[in-house]
Amino acid sequence: MSKIDDRLQELGITLPTAPKPGGSYVPVVLAAGMAFVAGQIPAVDGNIRYTGAVGRDADEDTARAAARTCALNILAALRSALDGDLDRVRRCVKLGVFVQCAEGFDRQPEVANSASDVMLQVFGEAGRHARFAVGTNALPRNVTVEIDAIFEID
Amino acid sequence: MSKIDDRLQELGITLPTAPKPGGSYVPVVLAAGMAFVAGQIPAVDGNIRYTGAVGRDADEDTARAAARTCALNILAALRSALDGDLDRVRRCVKLGVFVQCAEGFDRQPEVANSASDVMLQVFGEAGRHARFAVGTNALPRNVTVEIDAIFEID
Amino acid sequence: MSKIDDRLQELGITLPTAPKPGGSYVPVVLAAGMAFVAGQIPAVDGNIRYTGAVGRDADEDTARAAARTCALNILAALRSALDGDLDRVRRCVKLGVFVQCAEGFDRQPEVANSASDVMLQVFGEAGRHARFAVGTNALPRNVTVEIDAIFEID
Repeated sequence: MSKIDDRLQELGITLPTAPKPGGSYVPVVLAAGMAFVAGQIPAVDGNIRYTGAVGRDADEDTARAAARTCALNILAALRSALDGDLDRVRRCVKLGVFVQCAEGFDRQPEVANSASDVMLQVFGEAGRHARFAVGTNALPRNVTVEIDAIFEID
Repeated sequence: MSKIDDRLQELGITLPTAPKPGGSYVPVVLAAGMAFVAGQIPAVDGNIRYTGAVGRDADEDTARAAARTCALNILAALRSALDGDLDRVRRCVKLGVFVQCAEGFDRQPEVANSASDVMLQVFGEAGRHARFAVGTNALPRNVTVEIDAIFEID
Repeated sequence: MSKIDDRLQELGITLPTAPKPGGSYVPVVLAAGMAFVAGQIPAVDGNIRYTGAVGRDADEDTARAAARTCALNILAALRSALDGDLDRVRRCVKLGVFVQCAEGFDRQPEVANSASDVMLQVFGEAGRHARFAVGTNALPRNVTVEIDAIFEID
């Protein structure tokens, strides 16, 4: 078992099944020493879990749970693209966090932290990443959060 | 004639004139083995073709046509940056798709597929990319779709 | 003193203190020959300067001042990550510009130019970058503009 798999087990995290792409694209592209992970939504085993706009029809806790689920899907997609070996991750480079929200909602960083914390817990220092966190008026399938990612890999 | 130019001809695709940048920036930067293509809008030869928000003043077919036009502009900009030689493309790495839409519109992936399909048709397996597709309340010049891209190149 | 520091002085630009991250992430990640700078907001020494949505409660000049401040924070964060040596910048590769705005506002490029111009002034030809500029209905702390960046570095 890999070091990162050990760490996931210690944290009590079971990664979901690697998500299927929701369109004519792929979940992960490996290029130039990096893994580009497509925007992940808060679905578990194909069922969308968290929908609605924060500040209108979803609360901040829901958004944080959604962001965490996106982060776990990122890891599941990445593990699958790396033939099961997350130890090949050298660094989590960047998260791009889109939060569906009402005008006036300004706590996107607090929502995004829930995904960032997953990377820190799983990869330690190598999990410290750059990030943007912004609001949006609409997301696919009415999900509350969508997150894409870049990793540096061996 | 290059392999990709042949393929474009087979598909009946004539690329538009490479778009001029709409501000103080450039359409493509080549760096670290990759081509970073600036956000393209659905203009043809300088005239904007598709405007308005899906779900309010544009329909999904318009948005799909807009996304396809953005994809063609991406290829035109890239070909120009590669001195006319699209055969130097090793992989389409990522598309970033912004769809101007009303609250409640949740079919950004169906809109984005219209751009993704261009990459698959033109580059085959090498056209399979990662992607995000999100909504937004406003875009430059009121265009319906804006798309940026990353390619791996030789 | 470095060439770029000289240039900043010529331009009369004093970079702000490198911004602290606003969440569980870092301002800059160096990976694969590039620097990925986290989304910067228009704060100076920790105090947010420009808030509100353009076209509703902020005007375009405010948005342009906000974009410029984001650009200066990008440079401050980058300089700190490069141990004070901005001469290691080989190229400004990309800016990602999010403008908080009302529906109907369509001059995101004019707002973004204010940040792009900083890169051109400071780095000359090496400052010419790719870019996306889009609207959004909401940003962290109600800021008017958020910008992230990628640089190629030595």
